Amino acid sequence: MAAPDPDQLANGLLGGDTRALARAVTLLESTRADHRAAARHLLARIAPNAGNAVRIGISGAPGVGKSTFIEALGLHVLDAGHRLAVLAVDPSSPRTGGSLLGDKTRMERLAQEGGRAFVRPSPSGGALGGVARRTREAILACEATGFDVVIIETVGTGQSEGAVAHLSDLFVLLIAPGGGDELQGLKRGIVELADIVVVNKADGELANAARRIRDDYASALGLMRPRSPLWQPPVLPASALEGTGVAEVWRAIEAFRAAHAGSDGIAARRGAQARAWLWEAVEDGLRDHLHRDARSRRWMAELERQVMAGELEPADGAANILKRILAP
Amino acid sequence: MAAPDPDQLANGLLGGDTRALARAVTLLESTRADHRAAARHLLARIAPNAGNAVRIGISGAPGVGKSTFIEALGLHVLDAGHRLAVLAVDPSSPRTGGSLLGDKTRMERLAQEGGRAFVRPSPSGGALGGVARRTREAILACEATGFDVVIIETVGTGQSEGAVAHLSDLFVLLIAPGGGDELQGLKRGIVELADIVVVNKADGELANAARRIRDDYASALGLMRPRSPLWQPPVLPASALEGTGVAEVWRAIEAFRAAHAGSDGIAARRGAQARAWLWEAVEDGLRDHLHRDARSRRWMAELERQVMAGELEPADGAANILKRILAP
Repeated sequence: MAAPDPDQLANGLLGGDTRALARAVTLLESTRADHRAAARHLLARIAPNAGNAVRIGISGAPGVGKSTFIEALGLHVLDAGHRLAVLAVDPSSPRTGGSLLGDKTRMERLAQEGGRAFVRPSPSGGALGGVARRTREAILACEATGFDVVIIETVGTGQSEGAVAHLSDLFVLLIAPGGGDELQGLKRGIVELADIVVVNKADGELANAARRIRDDYASALGLMRPRSPLWQPPVLPASALEGTGVAEVWRAIEAFRAAHAGSDGIAARRGAQARAWLWEAVEDGLRDHLHRDARSRRWMAELERQVMAGELEPADGAANILKRILAP
Repeated sequence: MAAPDPDQLANGLLGGDTRALARAVTLLESTRADHRAAARHLLARIAPNAGNAVRIGISGAPGVGKSTFIEALGLHVLDAGHRLAVLAVDPSSPRTGGSLLGDKTRMERLAQEGGRAFVRPSPSGGALGGVARRTREAILACEATGFDVVIIETVGTGQSEGAVAHLSDLFVLLIAPGGGDELQGLKRGIVELADIVVVNKADGELANAARRIRDDYASALGLMRPRSPLWQPPVLPASALEGTGVAEVWRAIEAFRAAHAGSDGIAARRGAQARAWLWEAVEDGLRDHLHRDARSRRWMAELERQVMAGELEPADGAANILKRILAP
């Protein structure tokens, strides 16, 4: 496939054309060199019109009712007059085989909303760094197309939540009573990323269990200093099935935005995120180069082995690497 | 001061001489180029004899009774026939002014134990990376001198716990009832680093409050998947004042070691730590170089500004940096 014309795509996006957006996201997912060149051109064109959405990361273990909840929240958001894009980050599995999220039949009701909603399954697998890069760029494309609410969804298996939290303005953690294992299975660090915790399935015979879990999480969050000094993460009950609690979650999201409207709020978070992504990408690229380049490959593997075995101090190993790459 | 003879120092260390250890740690703390060269020589000499201690990170907010607890634990450890070194990481303040930890009159009873205990205040301030590097090296020097228990202490202000946890085989978090603020002030992420939580001051009129806090933390930790699949972090009461609970904490430390004796235990943790320190040092060094070097300074500042402002994608910024440094 020849690279699509990035100017034509950019015009489509800026005109609000959702089909152009779908083609643009496909382009952004490609790693082919000519596609990347076109993608960069596209991103440069749309950059001035990006950045205007609230970026909501949502995660939860399998079985908590993530799709149903996102659909319910999404329909509420559309009712409130917004345009909604839902992107998925699923580094665990390529699109072709057993993806936990990439099912095209999901969120049918959102998909039927036409140009007001855009639902995109996870791009094919690969390293988390690559998936995160593609997702970052897809967010910008959605924003340029006029979607003012972007949900970035990931399955809570512990691999991708951090990445999604660092792509988002705020991070919503979905939990649910029942099973017990799903709940205990939350990887350490995940709860701490949450700006809002939602206890889903707070209905029917699970209502009591949901209340208990809610208390547990509220008390656990109370033990930690909030991630943002401007915000104490609430724990909210919801039932995507009965449609209750969804409006309250959206209200909390809006309250979070209002609390972070200043220059030390979301803008600062995005700046710090971008800077962290920059240096992570530099480190990844450098590590990759040194491990692959024929001139450094063996040297690098041996150096890393020595450091891991305690035969070479990390600081000295780093000095050797820097001397090698920064030789005048 | 001329650089001390590293071979003479190495011989002193390998002979178990604590005064030589004190001089060696001073050498390791120096950033002077000739001192660094001597330090590297010293480290190379002692490396085969290092690595044999259990490295225990201990942190807690100001007011939880950290010094008293470490002294009580330390005396217990000495009674059990071990040799104990206590190092401090205190990046917040240089030794000359108001250090939170570096007080030389602390732990007098340990200091009076002569050659069986080695207590070292925090090295003078500086970036956390530098402090961590010096502390890593000081641990190796203590081990080569025959200290088989090394405690790395840090004040729980949220800055240094992560670094200390990554210098240690296991991480002990000290909390205490009372104040409330100290407890709430735990930065997110700290609880999750803990392999053992100790509720200090579980005595007298605070006994009931200590029990409540203990339950809270046990339930919070129960919500998270343990950091190590081989270990569920216990929450243990202790009173350094009354001397109770200290033996149980030491027993938990020994149980942790026993559970992690295999190749996927402490050895794997140390290897992963060393690898992470290596790449962190590379990133720090590279960032530092690009921001300082006259040829790249302005270019680098502008690139970072563009990335943080959203004008340049992090991935593209990283590609520019890599192109610049890896040019053939």
